[in-house]
Amino acid sequence: MAVYTEVTDDELRAFLSDYDIGEVVAFKGIAEGVENSNYLLQTVRDPDDTPQNYILTLYEKRVRPEDLPYFLGLMDHLAENGISCPTPIHGRDGEALRELCGRPAAIISFLSGMWPRKIAPRHCTELGVAMAGMHAAGADFDGHRENTMSLASWQDLVAATKDRADEVTPGLSGLIVDELAYITSDWPADLPQGVIHADLFPDNVFFLGERLSGLIDFYFACNDALAYDLAVCMNAWCFEADASLNVTKARALLRGYAGVRGLSRAEYDALPALARGAALRFTLTRLYDWLNHDEDAFVRPKDPRQFLDRLRFHQQVDGPEAYGITYDDVSG
Amino acid sequence: MAVYTEVTDDELRAFLSDYDIGEVVAFKGIAEGVENSNYLLQTVRDPDDTPQNYILTLYEKRVRPEDLPYFLGLMDHLAENGISCPTPIHGRDGEALRELCGRPAAIISFLSGMWPRKIAPRHCTELGVAMAGMHAAGADFDGHRENTMSLASWQDLVAATKDRADEVTPGLSGLIVDELAYITSDWPADLPQGVIHADLFPDNVFFLGERLSGLIDFYFACNDALAYDLAVCMNAWCFEADASLNVTKARALLRGYAGVRGLSRAEYDALPALARGAALRFTLTRLYDWLNHDEDAFVRPKDPRQFLDRLRFHQQVDGPEAYGITYDDVSG
Repeated sequence: MAVYTEVTDDELRAFLSDYDIGEVVAFKGIAEGVENSNYLLQTVRDPDDTPQNYILTLYEKRVRPEDLPYFLGLMDHLAENGISCPTPIHGRDGEALRELCGRPAAIISFLSGMWPRKIAPRHCTELGVAMAGMHAAGADFDGHRENTMSLASWQDLVAATKDRADEVTPGLSGLIVDELAYITSDWPADLPQGVIHADLFPDNVFFLGERLSGLIDFYFACNDALAYDLAVCMNAWCFEADASLNVTKARALLRGYAGVRGLSRAEYDALPALARGAALRFTLTRLYDWLNHDEDAFVRPKDPRQFLDRLRFHQQVDGPEAYGITYDDVSG
Repeated sequence: MAVYTEVTDDELRAFLSDYDIGEVVAFKGIAEGVENSNYLLQTVRDPDDTPQNYILTLYEKRVRPEDLPYFLGLMDHLAENGISCPTPIHGRDGEALRELCGRPAAIISFLSGMWPRKIAPRHCTELGVAMAGMHAAGADFDGHRENTMSLASWQDLVAATKDRADEVTPGLSGLIVDELAYITSDWPADLPQGVIHADLFPDNVFFLGERLSGLIDFYFACNDALAYDLAVCMNAWCFEADASLNVTKARALLRGYAGVRGLSRAEYDALPALARGAALRFTLTRLYDWLNHDEDAFVRPKDPRQFLDRLRFHQQVDGPEAYGITYDDVSG
């Protein structure tokens, strides 16, 4: 929860003068998202109109400004191809990205829905279907962005955290060094590539009642192995509070996905390694944030041990059958 | 900025079943208010409806549950008497106050407008007019609540902070002890009483364009001297960043108020003492929070020195003429 940048009413009005969305009638900081400052923005064209909702995002230091055209262009592309996601509002000059309070900023459409606090298998099915649809829709997106949170960054993160990792949990330093060595030598190559979300945690997936209503927060999206997105979601959606895998949820996620886009044999076989990599990625970024927590940020760092438990689970796994599915289940 | 209590979707749906406002389509924590947890809640009765906005508030530990009927009843009363303010939404059983996640909770109407980040004299005029209207509308409200943030509490706060006050600014301990002694002996008595807001800072006053659109956050409202509300606002709205009084703003506030409700001679004469008391009140509560800051709260405590500067200003004042007005200006 965070609003890092305070926007004054005068600055906001000047900013909005580049858009054709009417006059502001409400503007409130939203306590969601830890990377950027997000505001609920309501405008009307006529005083008697029902207000129209938008999200105004100021991109803070963790987002590289040069990546923003990729992210915003992707949202436009996905929406044009039938994926429910927020879309950038373009100003009178056609631009979606401009500057506010010295930061890159954009107005994004407001997506209805709530993210599920308590995950049920039906959520995982819907998620799998929607993610496969997103992967299909992204196939002809012509932007390209390397995954900045992949293997090379894990090497940097291990180097930056291993000396103090044992402060969090005894033995953690040795574990991340060993795991990185394993992943570096065995990381699956030549899997089908495409646009992935790379951060589809429950708070980035909205539902209206039983149905998924949209995907948000594309600020880690990149080009990488499609099945890696599945591995991220398996870790984020299918484990219980006691660190046990809920096989029903994993099966629901994978079958939901495969019903739209079948997995190749190589993707199926790679799932345990991808899941280990995804678990290591979130262990490392959370560990780094935990050790380098800025007291002034007033954001509670997430506990790195949560994904460490998932990593240990995947280390014990004999093969993808442990996730409750056979290859026939997911070959499409 | 804060959301202290996480509400799950299941808890929210169960809570909303007591209301006749439709189904939830959006629910987002709001990064405003440091006392309670506030959520933007959007509902629709039919899927094709334009969503209706509400605020869902969970009252956290600083609010005494026994005071909530006063606060909510006051909002209802003021709205019925033409004051623009949020009003509690009553459930099917007629109740506005119920429980959610173990806390008292209420759904409140959503008030359009933005609070002014940069104060101009015209804001102060509008504020004075609106506050006087609120005082008039409160005259026949039959609830009663003592001001829990008045003289008796200042004595407690001085006792609780004086030993460590010099950690914030050298000499602060002696200053608050001396000031409390002065105020205790010279605190104005027998001034006209009524319902006051007691916390009308800029972030509690909304504007649409040039016009004030409403007052929010009545959770310090109480029965006390009406002119004390003016003193709180003078401190909160009429000083510049360099701690100097902007006489144009003070005059605008006081004249705006007096145009609706003229001040008595006793009220006019009492303004410097009331302003000293109001400055001491916010110095003390901020000092207490500064010294007793809960690291886990992730709320940045406000600097107590800001109101200390105002207190020093009022200590130097010869009389209410220093605020840019004569008695004739404000006698109505």
